Amino acid sequence: MRCKSCGSSFQDYYYADTCKQCHEHHKAKVVFLGATHPASFSDVVLFASDDEAAGPVPAHKAVLVSRSPVFRAMFENEMEESLSSTIKIGEVSYRTLDAFVNFLYTAEVRLDQQFACALFVMAEKYQVQHLKDYCQKFLVANLNCDNSLLTYTLAHRHNAKQIIDAALIVITDNMDKLTSRKEYAKLKEKDPQLVIEIYEAFLSRHSSFSCVRTVSYSVYDVCESDFA
Amino acid sequence: MRCKSCGSSFQDYYYADTCKQCHEHHKAKVVFLGATHPASFSDVVLFASDDEAAGPVPAHKAVLVSRSPVFRAMFENEMEESLSSTIKIGEVSYRTLDAFVNFLYTAEVRLDQQFACALFVMAEKYQVQHLKDYCQKFLVANLNCDNSLLTYTLAHRHNAKQIIDAALIVITDNMDKLTSRKEYAKLKEKDPQLVIEIYEAFLSRHSSFSCVRTVSYSVYDVCESDFA
Repeated sequence: MRCKSCGSSFQDYYYADTCKQCHEHHKAKVVFLGATHPASFSDVVLFASDDEAAGPVPAHKAVLVSRSPVFRAMFENEMEESLSSTIKIGEVSYRTLDAFVNFLYTAEVRLDQQFACALFVMAEKYQVQHLKDYCQKFLVANLNCDNSLLTYTLAHRHNAKQIIDAALIVITDNMDKLTSRKEYAKLKEKDPQLVIEIYEAFLSRHSSFSCVRTVSYSVYDVCESDFA
Repeated sequence: MRCKSCGSSFQDYYYADTCKQCHEHHKAKVVFLGATHPASFSDVVLFASDDEAAGPVPAHKAVLVSRSPVFRAMFENEMEESLSSTIKIGEVSYRTLDAFVNFLYTAEVRLDQQFACALFVMAEKYQVQHLKDYCQKFLVANLNCDNSLLTYTLAHRHNAKQIIDAALIVITDNMDKLTSRKEYAKLKEKDPQLVIEIYEAFLSRHSSFSCVRTVSYSVYDVCESDFA
């Protein structure tokens, strides 16, 4: 097996394309590249418009434009923002904005369910695919009966198919519990199409189960007759 | 085995501490963090003093100070440079300076022997440990009879023990060829201490060989006598 990074031959175990040395080298690179501090010689400050009193979040235009095509358009196309060094970011808390900017510098963030949702929305808005993937992975891995309806609603708003599919499995596994919940009643009222999609998924899974059961019975019948 | 990055359990094959998903995640992080372009909204330009006509190398103070304690001292301690946005870098070609700055942004550079030496010197001067390690690894891996004396001399100038040790092995393996070379004559004239160190290493290896040979003979003698 040849290492894709250095070309040396190595024994192929778990990682298909990289030798151990290059793997360690990748980890060191992350530390090296993630060392820039947003506040060091910053040339722009962002304010969370929901939370302006909390203060500015300093950053560098060069970093923002390299991570987000939305910031690129904002700063490079002579829009109002490109001339200013103060940018107001709408519909976001200071905490989320600060973590968002920090992620752009370090590719690191400590998530919980609510925070992952908030950052997923920011990643979608500013088209930061790496953060979107990061939050998506967290949201799918941490889906449970309690958060499934809210996560499903959020995912639909942002067309996140992977989360929608995973949430539908959890929801349709827990229909009896969920239909008595407040979130369910709220969703039925606000967005009936989403509730219909849930029932369609439920019906589809139910039919597949019935098919599997029918097929199992037939196989069983065949076996039975074979042994008769 | 538990993954050091995500805490999930995985089968322990070649990489001791990280699961496959986290390994892939590290690779994606490197791409994400290495995307900033030195020329985008730069706030400082560097000139290679040996090669000023070749033009400026743009950069960001924030990136330079986060990668190099020398740049940190230069820009943060109200030295002359901190007030200026033009910095002259001594004893370096434009090509090397450009590659050096690019490495600070991407952690990537394509090396050959001569270029690795030039960048090793820059890494040493600006205390960029990650680049120093990178060049050192390359220089050790690419040592041969032809470049051993020059690499040895460079390593001595910068106190790079790992390269010195590796070069001494190659040199002492090829003493008969090397002592007739121009580089040898030059080194003898310019830095006789280094030539003496070579001979001391040669003597030491030679004595070890003799010891091994003597010990082998003794063992052989003992075996012989055992079978007698």
